[in-house]
Order: sequence, then C-alpha cells, then structure tokens
Amino acid sequence: MATIKDIAERLGVAVSTVSKGLNGASDISDEMRQLVLDTAVEMGYTSKKMRSQEQKKVCIFVENMDYENIDQFGYDIITGFKKAAARKRWDVSVIPANLTLQTEENFDTYMLKHGYSGAFLIGFALHEDWLKQLTKTSFPTVLLDNYISNHAHTGYVGTDSFEGIQSAVCHLASLGHTRIAFLNGSKNSMVSNQRYQAFVQSMSACGLEPQNELIEYGYYVPDCAKHYVPTFLEHGATAIMCASDLIATGVINELNRRGLHVPEDVSVVGFDDLPIASQLNPSLSTIRQDRTDLGKSAVFLLDGLLNNVAISKILLRAKFIERNSTGPVRKK
Amino acid sequence: MATIKDIAERLGVAVSTVSKGLNGASDISDEMRQLVLDTAVEMGYTSKKMRSQEQKKVCIFVENMDYENIDQFGYDIITGFKKAAARKRWDVSVIPANLTLQTEENFDTYMLKHGYSGAFLIGFALHEDWLKQLTKTSFPTVLLDNYISNHAHTGYVGTDSFEGIQSAVCHLASLGHTRIAFLNGSKNSMVSNQRYQAFVQSMSACGLEPQNELIEYGYYVPDCAKHYVPTFLEHGATAIMCASDLIATGVINELNRRGLHVPEDVSVVGFDDLPIASQLNPSLSTIRQDRTDLGKSAVFLLDGLLNNVAISKILLRAKFIERNSTGPVRKK
Repeated sequence: MATIKDIAERLGVAVSTVSKGLNGASDISDEMRQLVLDTAVEMGYTSKKMRSQEQKKVCIFVENMDYENIDQFGYDIITGFKKAAARKRWDVSVIPANLTLQTEENFDTYMLKHGYSGAFLIGFALHEDWLKQLTKTSFPTVLLDNYISNHAHTGYVGTDSFEGIQSAVCHLASLGHTRIAFLNGSKNSMVSNQRYQAFVQSMSACGLEPQNELIEYGYYVPDCAKHYVPTFLEHGATAIMCASDLIATGVINELNRRGLHVPEDVSVVGFDDLPIASQLNPSLSTIRQDRTDLGKSAVFLLDGLLNNVAISKILLRAKFIERNSTGPVRKK
Repeated sequence: MATIKDIAERLGVAVSTVSKGLNGASDISDEMRQLVLDTAVEMGYTSKKMRSQEQKKVCIFVENMDYENIDQFGYDIITGFKKAAARKRWDVSVIPANLTLQTEENFDTYMLKHGYSGAFLIGFALHEDWLKQLTKTSFPTVLLDNYISNHAHTGYVGTDSFEGIQSAVCHLASLGHTRIAFLNGSKNSMVSNQRYQAFVQSMSACGLEPQNELIEYGYYVPDCAKHYVPTFLEHGATAIMCASDLIATGVINELNRRGLHVPEDVSVVGFDDLPIASQLNPSLSTIRQDRTDLGKSAVFLLDGLLNNVAISKILLRAKFIERNSTGPVRKK
C-alpha cells in the first residue's frame, strides 16, 4: 500500500508538501494539491485515518433520482441506509452527483480529498463517468441496481424483479388478458434490461406470447406515457405494465384523457409501490420494492467490502400487490 | 398468528394439554404430543419465546457434506457462521440431517419441537424431503447453494461462480487450450447447473466452442474421475476443469495412473480452494470460494429473515487462483 513517502518520492517533493496536499492546507498551490491528489489516487493511497477511524465517513451519491420528500423513490433508501449506518456510528453525507461534479473530478480523487472510506451510489446510468471509473476504484463502493464485473471492491444491491413481474403477468393472464404491453424505463439502465428479460420470460411462463409492438423503452418519468400509450392501444393492448409507479400514473392520465377507464377498459400495473400507489384512484396494483431494506442491505454490503468480504450481490424479493387498477379483460 | 388457545380449540382439548405438548412434558401421551405439534405447525404457531428470546437458538443442518476437519468443505462455513452468530449471542447447534431424520419428522415440526428460531441448511440435494417442505415453511431458513421461489421466509447464500469460471477458461485459452473438458458435480444440485451454464457461456466468451462429449456430470467425490477421464482423453481433451478440488484430486490421480503428467500433458483446474489445493504436487490452480464469508453472510441473511427483511440472495465473488496444475498446451 502506497505511503506519503512513496508519493513524495514519485513527485520529487518533500513529504510535508504531500501531507499538505492531502490535508487541504492552504499554503501550497492549487496545482500542486491537484498533482498530489492525482498521484495519491493513481498509487492507490488511502490514509490510515480513513482505514481505521472509529467514526467512519461514508457518503451516498445520488444522481437522476428524487429523494428529498417521503413520497419519492430515494427517500426510504437513504433513510434505511442512515438507520443501519447509525448503528455502526458511521457519519453519512448525501451528495448530489450531477454531471458537472463528475466531469470536474474523478471518483477516487473526490473520495480521497473528502476523506470518505466508502460510498453508496444510487440512480446512476450506465454511461456516466463515475460508473465507468468504478471498474478501477480502490474505494469500497456499493451500487444500487448496477453491477461492476470482476472488481471485488464493488458490490450490487437491488431487487430481484423476476418473481414480482411473473406474479403480475400471471395475475393479468388469469383475468383473461393476452395482449399485455410493457412500458419500460430508460435503456441506459441495467435494471430496465433485467425487467425486459423478466417480462418476456414471464409472458412465456404464463402461456402468453410477448409481442414486440407492445414492448417499449421510455423514461422513468410520467410524461413518457403519452408517446407510447397510443401505439399500445392501436395494437390492441388490454393491460399495460409499467417499470415504475410514476410511469403508471402517466399511463393512467393518458388513458383518462382519451376517455378510457382503468381497469374497465385497460388494466395498469406499476412497479415500486411508492406511497402514492395506494392513494391513486383507482389504487394502483404494483410490484413492491422494499426501499428501506435496500438501504439497510447496502450498509451491510459496504461494511463487508470495508472488511474485505467480497460480496458481489444482495438481492431482495419483489412482491406483487393487487389493488384496484387491474380487472377482468373487457368483453368486446 | 395462531395462539395456544387456537390450537386447543381446533383439537377440542384443554389449553394446558397443548402447552404440555409444546413443552415436551412427560405426562401426556406420545400420540397427543405429536398431534399437538402437527397442528401447531399446520397453524403456523411459533412461541413467544422463539420470537423474542434474548439468546436465540438457531441450527445448522448438514447433509452430504464433510465439515468436521479443517481441510473439509463445510468446516470454514460453520466456523464463519458461528463467529458471526456469537456477536448476536445466538446459540448455534450443528445437526447432521440424514435421510432417516428427514423421513421421521417434517422440517417445521422438528424446528418447533426443539425451539429453534431459524435454520441454515448446507449440502442438501434438490430431491430431499426437507428441501421440498421448505416451500411452505414458517421458519426463517437460509440455504447454501439452493433457492426457493416465491417464499419470503427463505433465502439463498452462495458463490457467484460465473466470473471465476470465466477467468479460468480464459486462462486456459490463453495457454493455447481449445479442447477443454468440464467434469461437473451431481445433477441433483442447483450449483452444478449454474456451473454448467457458466462453463458453456465462458467457453463462448473466450472464443471457444463447448463440446458435448467433453462435458459430464459426475459426483462431488474424487472417485468419479476414473469413469470420465478416459472418455475425455479419447476425445482429445488437453485441459480438465472440475466442479470441486476433490474431483480434481481424483482427476490428477487417474491421469498419473495412466502415465500422464500434470500440467505437461493435461492441465487441471479445481473449484473451492480447499486447504489441500495449495499442498498438492503440482499445486492446484482453482476457483476460490470464501467459505468463512459464506458462513458469515448466512448469519446476516438469517438475521434479516428473522426481522422480516425479505432478502432473496447474497452472492460472493469467486476468484481464479493460478498455481502449477495449468500450463501451455502440449505441442503434438
């Protein structure tokens, strides 16, 4: 493991200069501090303090995800993480990691500069800079719904959506639906790909034929519904499964705008079971992800990685919740 | 949740009789005690003591697996489990669960009768009675290398063998091997099926064609090697991957018996990294499963299930360890 002395030798500067660079002292130039940090990252340096301190500093980086209010997807995840982290006396920071931040600084430099021992990343898309840099990170890092191959410093926590999606599809099949559409989330997301596979396999498992014209990738926002609902209706869909509750609200609004009723004309199924799902009219049948438990499991996984336990994945079960947005297929 | 009173009403007996039946008192008949236990299980009864006691009683059921000596597969798993359980002040029993025991008593009855709050099952084959009964158990149960669909009281801990197998196959490919055989474990095992998939996919990922005549299911004992090594050699295998280190020792012995040298004539790869792997001559290249961490992860999973966190799977990374049993393909 690289020491301060190793970094000083590599750069040909005094140990005290390196020390100042790492500790953010003001009496060296910005350029020198950046050079020290970059070299430290390159050499895989982590401070003794970060490795052994009683009260570890860890952070949650959030991107593309709402989390500030109790009805938003990220809220319970962060709460669950904080609750479990509190038991370990970890100090948790929540940091929005937008594109600007990711462009300005590489992941390991940011971690080192701020003295974080480990991180939990939620909401990142596959193409983002930091996600790509994680294939080489030396910081223990847990990702929600993203997986890094062959790198033991990283782990993946998520919901095993297969069983939940299969229960939902079989529920719709038992109600007589055969033309079931699937409005997925963004293509730039590992979880969208998993849900696509789960949907296609579940259709077959329930004795139905998945139809290409009834499967679309949208975005994880309600607004995407208006682009895809018309096509689904043209192709005879009698039920629409959605990759999130937010998408489902958009679908229901678009159906209503067209004078169609849920579930009498078209059945709708969400995903997540956000607080809003049970409050909608009709209440939304959906597939539940336990977000508090996802946050807690992330702490367990991160604690494992910090202790060199190479956990690769922790997956939770997803459960189909039947409410009032699904009903028997309409007789023609 | 069923109470003692509910059971008494169902059976039309006094509450005190039920209580005696559940607590193993000697002043009721064996038949009545069995009836009380069976009814309690059927009604999903668990005692307040089992749910809330400070020092929980849990057990590890072992079947088809050696664990008593440090060089055996189960040893570190059980040690890891006990270490993590000790922190939670759980009282852990290790119970061999042979076919006789499984035939005599059903799983839930056994758990209830002995006051266990949860269980960890290792080494069970797919066809065994208790494994089948787990689809309906009301006791939190963790399985090593086995998965029960759609049942939130159970969870699966194992090693994600895909990355390790792919590293091993690509290592052999880089040494010039193209005719790589795979001697798998028993067909009655979920993990054998996973390793088969991983092998076939890894061959393709490394640009090689998997050959049906070079893939066989044996058993997880060295002795199975003598049945399959001759066929592999007839079909031109220059490397043999094995589903366990024990199988690999059998393969090496069989090759030596035929006057062939490892790795000069044939390369051999194991799976597990048992203590014996580094002691063999030549030392065995193998895919490491961290058994202590598997045991510790099982405790985390069981603790989750006991607290209604529906964790479905925890998977650890497998790492390919290059030693001396693999070398360049022999030039003809």
